[in-house]
Amino acid sequence: MRPSGRALDQMREIVIEPGFTKHAEGSVLIRCGDTHVLCTASVEERVPPFLRNSGQGWVTAEYGMLPRATNTRGRREAAAGKQSGRTQEIQRLIGRSLRAGIDQQALGERQITVDCDVLQADGGTRCASITGGWVALRLAVNALMKAGDVITDPMLDHVAAVSCGIYAGQPVLDLDYAEDSEAGTDGNFVMTGAGRMIELQASAEGATFGQDEFAELMRLAQKGVDELVAAQRAAVS
Amino acid sequence: MRPSGRALDQMREIVIEPGFTKHAEGSVLIRCGDTHVLCTASVEERVPPFLRNSGQGWVTAEYGMLPRATNTRGRREAAAGKQSGRTQEIQRLIGRSLRAGIDQQALGERQITVDCDVLQADGGTRCASITGGWVALRLAVNALMKAGDVITDPMLDHVAAVSCGIYAGQPVLDLDYAEDSEAGTDGNFVMTGAGRMIELQASAEGATFGQDEFAELMRLAQKGVDELVAAQRAAVS
Amino acid sequence: MRPSGRALDQMREIVIEPGFTKHAEGSVLIRCGDTHVLCTASVEERVPPFLRNSGQGWVTAEYGMLPRATNTRGRREAAAGKQSGRTQEIQRLIGRSLRAGIDQQALGERQITVDCDVLQADGGTRCASITGGWVALRLAVNALMKAGDVITDPMLDHVAAVSCGIYAGQPVLDLDYAEDSEAGTDGNFVMTGAGRMIELQASAEGATFGQDEFAELMRLAQKGVDELVAAQRAAVS
Amino acid sequence: MRPSGRALDQMREIVIEPGFTKHAEGSVLIRCGDTHVLCTASVEERVPPFLRNSGQGWVTAEYGMLPRATNTRGRREAAAGKQSGRTQEIQRLIGRSLRAGIDQQALGERQITVDCDVLQADGGTRCASITGGWVALRLAVNALMKAGDVITDPMLDHVAAVSCGIYAGQPVLDLDYAEDSEAGTDGNFVMTGAGRMIELQASAEGATFGQDEFAELMRLAQKGVDELVAAQRAAVS
Amino acid sequence: MRPSGRALDQMREIVIEPGFTKHAEGSVLIRCGDTHVLCTASVEERVPPFLRNSGQGWVTAEYGMLPRATNTRGRREAAAGKQSGRTQEIQRLIGRSLRAGIDQQALGERQITVDCDVLQADGGTRCASITGGWVALRLAVNALMKAGDVITDPMLDHVAAVSCGIYAGQPVLDLDYAEDSEAGTDGNFVMTGAGRMIELQASAEGATFGQDEFAELMRLAQKGVDELVAAQRAAVS
Amino acid sequence: MRPSGRALDQMREIVIEPGFTKHAEGSVLIRCGDTHVLCTASVEERVPPFLRNSGQGWVTAEYGMLPRATNTRGRREAAAGKQSGRTQEIQRLIGRSLRAGIDQQALGERQITVDCDVLQADGGTRCASITGGWVALRLAVNALMKAGDVITDPMLDHVAAVSCGIYAGQPVLDLDYAEDSEAGTDGNFVMTGAGRMIELQASAEGATFGQDEFAELMRLAQKGVDELVAAQRAAVS
Repeated sequence: MRPSGRALDQMREIVIEPGFTKHAEGSVLIRCGDTHVLCTASVEERVPPFLRNSGQGWVTAEYGMLPRATNTRGRREAAAGKQSGRTQEIQRLIGRSLRAGIDQQALGERQITVDCDVLQADGGTRCASITGGWVALRLAVNALMKAGDVITDPMLDHVAAVSCGIYAGQPVLDLDYAEDSEAGTDGNFVMTGAGRMIELQASAEGATFGQDEFAELMRLAQKGVDELVAAQRAAVS
Repeated sequence: MRPSGRALDQMREIVIEPGFTKHAEGSVLIRCGDTHVLCTASVEERVPPFLRNSGQGWVTAEYGMLPRATNTRGRREAAAGKQSGRTQEIQRLIGRSLRAGIDQQALGERQITVDCDVLQADGGTRCASITGGWVALRLAVNALMKAGDVITDPMLDHVAAVSCGIYAGQPVLDLDYAEDSEAGTDGNFVMTGAGRMIELQASAEGATFGQDEFAELMRLAQKGVDELVAAQRAAVS
Repeated sequence: MRPSGRALDQMREIVIEPGFTKHAEGSVLIRCGDTHVLCTASVEERVPPFLRNSGQGWVTAEYGMLPRATNTRGRREAAAGKQSGRTQEIQRLIGRSLRAGIDQQALGERQITVDCDVLQADGGTRCASITGGWVALRLAVNALMKAGDVITDPMLDHVAAVSCGIYAGQPVLDLDYAEDSEAGTDGNFVMTGAGRMIELQASAEGATFGQDEFAELMRLAQKGVDELVAAQRAAVS
Repeated sequence: MRPSGRALDQMREIVIEPGFTKHAEGSVLIRCGDTHVLCTASVEERVPPFLRNSGQGWVTAEYGMLPRATNTRGRREAAAGKQSGRTQEIQRLIGRSLRAGIDQQALGERQITVDCDVLQADGGTRCASITGGWVALRLAVNALMKAGDVITDPMLDHVAAVSCGIYAGQPVLDLDYAEDSEAGTDGNFVMTGAGRMIELQASAEGATFGQDEFAELMRLAQKGVDELVAAQRAAVS
Repeated sequence: MRPSGRALDQMREIVIEPGFTKHAEGSVLIRCGDTHVLCTASVEERVPPFLRNSGQGWVTAEYGMLPRATNTRGRREAAAGKQSGRTQEIQRLIGRSLRAGIDQQALGERQITVDCDVLQADGGTRCASITGGWVALRLAVNALMKAGDVITDPMLDHVAAVSCGIYAGQPVLDLDYAEDSEAGTDGNFVMTGAGRMIELQASAEGATFGQDEFAELMRLAQKGVDELVAAQRAAVS
Repeated sequence: MRPSGRALDQMREIVIEPGFTKHAEGSVLIRCGDTHVLCTASVEERVPPFLRNSGQGWVTAEYGMLPRATNTRGRREAAAGKQSGRTQEIQRLIGRSLRAGIDQQALGERQITVDCDVLQADGGTRCASITGGWVALRLAVNALMKAGDVITDPMLDHVAAVSCGIYAGQPVLDLDYAEDSEAGTDGNFVMTGAGRMIELQASAEGATFGQDEFAELMRLAQKGVDELVAAQRAAVS
C-alpha cells in the first residue's frame, strides 16, 4: 500500500491556475498534490551570443526552491552564493525538455525564460516544473501571437513530465516525498502529447533494476503524462 | 491625484492568508494591493554562536524576490552568486524590526528564521514583509506555546510597517510602484501596535525635505500602521 | 554622564586635513574624535550604463574598514570574498547622501567615486564618511572647475551627517563607540547646510521610542550638523 | 556510415593502464579511442557528516576537464571560480553509479574519492570516467583488503557505462565527438557486470524518440558494456 | 639621471611614525618617499589548525591597497570579491619574511597578524610593508613582554626590505614608481639586520640580466637595508 | 647523502614527450623524475584588452594540480571556488618567464596560453612547468610558422628552470619533495639557453642564508639549466 492510499497507477490531484502573477507574459501556479510550483515565462527580445543574427529563438529555464518549501528549512542559495549541483541539473533538464517542444525558427530571435520556483515541495518538483512551465510558455507564446510578433505557432506539441519508481517492490506512478525517499529506483519521464519521448532518466538507489521493471515504469509514465496533458489542455483553453 | 485613484491617506487593500504553505511552523501570504509576499517562520533549536548557552533566542530574516515578481525580469540572485546590497539591507531591516517585538529571553535558546519571498511586487515589499513576517512569527510562537516549548508569551506587541512619501508635492500613504518610482521623498515606518517607533527611514530622492513634511509623513504612517495591526489581529485570531 | 565627559549636546573634536594623499582629485583625512576616515574623490570620464549619453554625471561611494580599525581585528572583506551587508548598506547611504547635494546635469557626463576608508573607528564612521566625503567631493569639483571641465558649480549645498541616540535614557549628540554599543535608540541624520533633510534613519535597539524623543534627537542633530558644516567650510576655504 | 568508419555496433578501442600515477591508492589511465581520462581513487579515513558513527562508508566522485582537452580551449573552472552545471551533473552521476556497485557497510566508515580528469576529449567522457573510475576504485579497495583494513570485499559487481545514440537516423554504439554533436538522441547507460541497470539517461536533441528506438539503444548498450567489463576484468587481474 | 634627481645609491626619505592608530597592539605609518603604508600588528590567542597544541606561535600578514592609493583608481578587492594574484603573492612574501625573524617557540602559541594597507603608492609598497610591518610586530611583541605573556624575546633580528633594479641601464637603489615602471630588471631583497638574506627576487622585464649585474644590485640592497634598519632602530627605541 | 642517492649536483632523469595530446597546437608531457606535468600551448587570435590594435602578441600561463597529484589528496580548486595564492603565484611566474623568451612584436597580435597541469608531483613542479611549457610554446610557434601565420621566428632563446636549495647543510641541485620539504633555503632559477637570468627567487625557510651560499646555488642552477636546455633541444628537433 502507498502511504497516501493511492492505487499503484494513480496520480495525485492536478490543479493548474493560470495568471497567478500579473507581470509575466505567462504565469501559472501548478499543484500536483502538495507540490506547488509557481512558473512564469518571461519574453526578452534578445538571445544568447551563439544565436545572435541566426533568426532563431531560445527557451531556457531557471529553478529554485524557497527555503521553507521543504520539511526542514534549506539554506537559501542566494545566501550560500551559488546554486547547488541539484538545482543546476534540474534547470538544465527543464530547459532541454521545453526546447524539445518548440520550433526555435518559428519563435523568432527572442528568448523566453521559464522560472520555476517551488513554493511547497512534496516530491516530483522537477516534473511539476516541466508540466507547469509548459503552460506558462504556452501562455507567453499566445501573447506573442496575439500581438502579431510571432506568426506561425512555434509550439510543436505538449510537453509534460511525471516520475515513476519502484516503491516497496512495486512500480508506482507519481511518487510523493514519502515514496521518493524510500524508492529503490526512481525515474523521470518527459514526453510529448503524442507519446514520444523527450527525456528518460532512471536511477537505481540501493538496488539495481532490470529491463522488465523499466518497461513497466514506462507504461505507468505514459498513463500519467496523458492525464497531465489533459490538465494542460483544460488550463490553456 | 494618485495613479490608483486612492485618497492621499488611503491604504491599498490588505489580505492576509495564514497557513499558505504546510511545512513551516508559521506561514502567511500577505497581499498589499498587488504586492504579494509569502512569509514563513521556521523554528530551529539552535542559535548563532554569540548566543550559545545564553538562554536567549534569536529572530532573523531573509528576503528574496522571484525573478519575475517585477515588471521586467530581474536576475536570480542565486545564479548571480550573491545577494544584492538592496536585498541585504532589506533583510537586515526586517530582522531588526521583528526582534524589537519579541522578548528574546522568553523565547528561549532557539532561532526563528522569517523568510520573506516576494511573489509579485508593486512597491512596498519591505513593509509588507515586516507586516506579514510578524504574522508568520506569531503563528510559529503560538505553535511553540501550544507544544509547551515556550511558557511565557515572548511577543511584546504587534510590529507593522508602511511606506509614506511625497508624491507630486503631496504627502501620501502606502506608495505603490507608480508612486514610489516618482516620489521626491520616500520613507518607511516600522511601529508597534501601541504606536511606538521601531525604525524610521526617510530618504530624499531628488529633493530634500523639511521637518514639517516629515511630521506629516509620520502622521500618515501612524494611520496606516493602525490599519495593518487591525488586519494582523484579524488574521491570527 | 557620558563616558567621555562630554555634555549631552557636545560634539567630539572635528579635524579635517585636506590633501592627505596626493593622487586623488580630492582627498581628506577627517577625524571626529577617535574616528578617523580617509576620504578620496576620484574623477573618471565615464558613467554607469544607465546614464550613457544622458549628459548627466554620477556620484557613488565605496566604504571599507581596515581590519584593525576596531578594538578586535575584523576579517578583511577582500579575503572573505565579499562585502558585508553592513558595508553595502553604509556605502549606499553615503552615495545617496552625496548625490542629493549635487546637480548631476551641471556635473556633466562623468563619475566621481568617493572612497571612505576607516583607519580607526570609535563610532559614527558612516557619518564621518559623509561629512569628510563631501569635502573630498568639493575639492575634486573645484579641480574640475579650475581645469575648465565644469563651468557651473554643480554643488548645491553642504552635506553633513551626525548620529544621535538615547544613551542611559538621555538623548545625546554624536555617539562614540562606548555610547553606541549601549544606546537604546540610535539615529543618523544627513542634512544640508541650509538645514534641509536628506536622510533620516532611527532604529530602536532594545527599546522602542516615541515621537517626542525623536524630535529631541532631530534638534540635537541640527546643532551637530551646523558645527560640521562650519568645519567643512573652514577646510575648503 | 559513421565518420570513423566503425560498424553501427562497434566500440572504439579500449586501453586501460593501471598504476598511471603513483600516489593514489588506485589510479588508471583509460583510453576509449581518443577520449583519455585519468582516474584516481583516494582513501580517506573520514566520512561526510551524515554518515559519522554509522559504520558505513562513502564513495564520491569529482570530474574535471583540462582546459585544452577539447578542440578549442575551454576556460579553467578554477579560474572561473566555479564548476559548471555540466561538470556537477557529471560528477554526481559518476558518484551515484559507483556507489551502486559497492556495499557501504562492508567498506567500513571511510571515504573513497574518485577523481576523473579528462586529459583529452572525443565524446563519451562521462562514460569513460565511470568505467575507468570503477577500475581505480577496485584497485584502492584491493589495497585496503591487502592491508587488512577491509575484510569482506565490498565490491558487488562491475560498473561500466557507454553512450548510444541515433546518428543519421541509425542507432549507433559508443558515440565519438563527431557523432555526439550531430546525434538526434543521445543516451548514457550505466550497468553492472550482470547486466542490471544502474542509471539510464536518454535525451532527445532536436527530434523526439519512440519506445522501439529506445529498446534498440538499450540492446546496443548491453553489448558495449559487456566489452567494457571484459576490459576491466583484464586490467585488474 | 634618475627622475627624482637622486644618486644611484640614494634611498628616498624614510619616516616611521609609531602608534599611528590606537587599537592595535603595534601600529606604525611608514613613509618611504611618497609610498605610505599603515602597518598594524594584532595579537590573537589562537593559532592555525596545524599548530594547535604545538606550543608554537605564528606570524602572518595581509596586504591591501586603498583604491585611490595609485594614480588611477583601482577596483576595490572587497567589491571584486577576491584578492588579486599580486596581492596574495605580496602578502605571502611579507608573512614569510617576518616569520624568518622570529622564534616561533619563544612567541608561544598565539598568532600575530600584520596588516599592511597602502594609503599612497609610489613604488616599493611590498618592501615598505615588510620594513614597517617589522616595526609593528616589534611593538606588539614589546607589549606582550611588558604584560609578562612572553618571557624570552622571540625577535631574532631586524627584518627590512628594499627594491633595486636596472633603470636606464644603470643599477639603482630604491625604485620609485617612475623608475619601476620603466626598469629592465627589478628585484626585492629582504635581509636581516646582520646582513643575512631572507628572500631574493629578481625578475627581468623586457631584458634578461647577467650575474655581474645581479651582484651590483645585491650590493646596493645591502646599503639600503642598513639605512632601513637604522630607521627601524630609531623608531622603536 | 640525498634521499634519492643522487650526487649533490645531479639532476633527476628528464623525459620530454611531445604531442602527448592531439588538440593543442603544442603539447608535451614532461617528466622530471616523479614530477609529471602536461603542458599544452593554445593559440587564439585575440589578445588582452591592453594590447588590442598594438600589433603585439601575448603569452600567458595557467597552472593546476590534479587533486591526487600529491601524497595526500588536495582540494580541487574548481570545487573550492578559487585558485590558491600559491597557484596564482606560480602561474604568474610561468607567464613572466615564457614572455621573456619571446619577441611579442614578431609573434603578431595573437595570444598563446600555456596550460601546465601537474599529473604527479614530487617537488619542482613550477620549474618543470616552465621547462615543459617552453617546449609546448616552441611547438605551437612552429605550427604558426609552418602555416605562414608568423614569418620571423619570435622565439629569442630557450627558457628553462631548475630549483636548488640547501639540504642538510649542503647546496644541492634539483630538489625532490623529500628534500624540498626539509630544505633550509629553497630557490628557483629561470634562465635562457645563453645563461642569462630571467628570474631568481630564493627564500630562507627556517634559516637565513649568506651571499656565498647563494653563489653556489647559482652555479648549480647553471649546470642544471644547461642539461634541461639540451633535453628541450632534443625534444623539438
